[in-house]
Amino acid sequence: MPVGTQGIVKALLPDMLTSIGYKLMLSNTYHLYLRPGIEIIEAFGGLHKFANFNGSILTDSGGFQVFSLSDLRKVAIEGVRFKSHIDGSYHFFTPEKVLDLQFRFKSDIAMVLDECPAYGLDKSATEKSLNITLNWAKRSSVIERPKDTAVFGIVQGGIFEDLRKKSALEISDMNFDGIAIGGLSVGEPLQQMYDTVAFTIEHLPKDKPRYAMGVGRPEDIITLVGFGIDMFDCVMPTRNARNGYLFTDFGNINIKNAIYAKDKSPIDEHCNCYTCKNFSRGFLRHLYKAKELSFYTLATIHNLTYYYNLIQSIKDAIKKGEFEQFAKSFLEKRRYGNS
Amino acid sequence: MPVGTQGIVKALLPDMLTSIGYKLMLSNTYHLYLRPGIEIIEAFGGLHKFANFNGSILTDSGGFQVFSLSDLRKVAIEGVRFKSHIDGSYHFFTPEKVLDLQFRFKSDIAMVLDECPAYGLDKSATEKSLNITLNWAKRSSVIERPKDTAVFGIVQGGIFEDLRKKSALEISDMNFDGIAIGGLSVGEPLQQMYDTVAFTIEHLPKDKPRYAMGVGRPEDIITLVGFGIDMFDCVMPTRNARNGYLFTDFGNINIKNAIYAKDKSPIDEHCNCYTCKNFSRGFLRHLYKAKELSFYTLATIHNLTYYYNLIQSIKDAIKKGEFEQFAKSFLEKRRYGNS
Repeated sequence: MPVGTQGIVKALLPDMLTSIGYKLMLSNTYHLYLRPGIEIIEAFGGLHKFANFNGSILTDSGGFQVFSLSDLRKVAIEGVRFKSHIDGSYHFFTPEKVLDLQFRFKSDIAMVLDECPAYGLDKSATEKSLNITLNWAKRSSVIERPKDTAVFGIVQGGIFEDLRKKSALEISDMNFDGIAIGGLSVGEPLQQMYDTVAFTIEHLPKDKPRYAMGVGRPEDIITLVGFGIDMFDCVMPTRNARNGYLFTDFGNINIKNAIYAKDKSPIDEHCNCYTCKNFSRGFLRHLYKAKELSFYTLATIHNLTYYYNLIQSIKDAIKKGEFEQFAKSFLEKRRYGNS
Repeated sequence: MPVGTQGIVKALLPDMLTSIGYKLMLSNTYHLYLRPGIEIIEAFGGLHKFANFNGSILTDSGGFQVFSLSDLRKVAIEGVRFKSHIDGSYHFFTPEKVLDLQFRFKSDIAMVLDECPAYGLDKSATEKSLNITLNWAKRSSVIERPKDTAVFGIVQGGIFEDLRKKSALEISDMNFDGIAIGGLSVGEPLQQMYDTVAFTIEHLPKDKPRYAMGVGRPEDIITLVGFGIDMFDCVMPTRNARNGYLFTDFGNINIKNAIYAKDKSPIDEHCNCYTCKNFSRGFLRHLYKAKELSFYTLATIHNLTYYYNLIQSIKDAIKKGEFEQFAKSFLEKRRYGNS
């Protein structure tokens, strides 16, 4: 899922997203609740109509944003009180309220409210946090949902295997349509993130979509698909694009480098995206250096196409029973290209 | 002409520009000379190929930018020395060099180097400046030009009727393919700008394109077409778009106003642009408030469509012999809408 926090992927028009092939976008409950607010989105008949987006929308619950963006927060079993990063106003999220907001957005997939413990938190504090997340999940699981909205539970538990197991088992027992692993890529070493997914996913049912939230690099996606993950979201393709980092199978390109100044070739000659079919590295570098807004659009189209093609290749390889070879060869190519 | 200073209209892809209907874009010699530099553009075979733009390109000479952007400048009869606003390096522009740069850009229309006197300069200083501009024009007019490149002279002379007349007559006598009136909209009252164009244009030949540089508002375009002006460029549609000011026949809309928050109608229900066909004022306001990059693209598409349609309506009215009625009715509608 490309990330369209405010109902739109940054620097992209909705048409461009569907042209690349994406059918699902992630938007953000915390941001949309604070601005423009539920009343406005509801007046338009939901987020799809408001944003004129014909694909599907998953909204994350805002739990992560409450814990990472808001100035101040106070968590209790009832919910979380927080201060808006926009105007300093105070708000209170409960699991019930957060699902209600997402139902009124007419989200296709709604995420339950969770608490995302900071990396480095000790086991006892992580367990305390997990118990709140599980209480919230339980309350969320019994709320009646609109028939066109799926609700996903979220597994937490930090880096602790027994807490993740407990969380995975309990969440799996609840009435959710899919299950996410949260609290990944929050500062822990890469191997620890991989280990956490590996020892968590073995306790998740195979007949429900399994979603690794906030992951990740192409290498991470391939690795976690190998573990059994089905869904991903990450700002990396879009944020990196805006910073001039462009993805290719032979490694990443930093477009600001002087070697690209007179380079007439596209970012990746094997890429079929609009940007690669029309523009050279040299011109893209010029746009980047001149801070031209069109650069952000062109770079985002390329990086999202790269991710889309990556996912298609993974799907193809799985269908052909060749995923392991595909993953091995891909990881070697990227390692070679980056060196 | 939409303004694409760096070889691209801000926030727009070249396709979008040609989709609206524009066949001619203005780019800037001063900016492109400083960055990416003539060597890079030449390595790509000129500006069209570098920027992948299939329309025509007029490049202005950089005279205006030297006088408005560079930290320091020293004008002599030979040329102008100036300091780059990017890195503080020193450069020297002569009329010959500036045309050579534009020929190497493969511009379709090249503008001669001129000196744009500041508004408020007294007559004697304005005349001194004009004599330099005329010397530069004379030298420019005798330079051999590539067969596919037109060269336009520029009339200066500040707000002084006799200086404008002298300038107009001398420039008209030189070997130029079109004639621009420069030094407009540099701080003078609106009526003085209109008067300047009126008393200048009567000395210009009717069989060459006459171009009012840097003008203007829809009202100004209609008024100056009435005087006989054929060509315009202005950052107003694109810059205003990025600031949330959207043009309509019934006045301008400031999209950040709270009254648009729940407004499901397009910017202008009579507008046929991509933005009006797909997005509401309410969603555009949300994007503007959230500083979403896509806002700049959508607003620019609308404003440039508005200007394009305005020019088409003017052309139609002229063909039908109804320009005067059209102009009168247009100016009344705008006045009413803005009140």
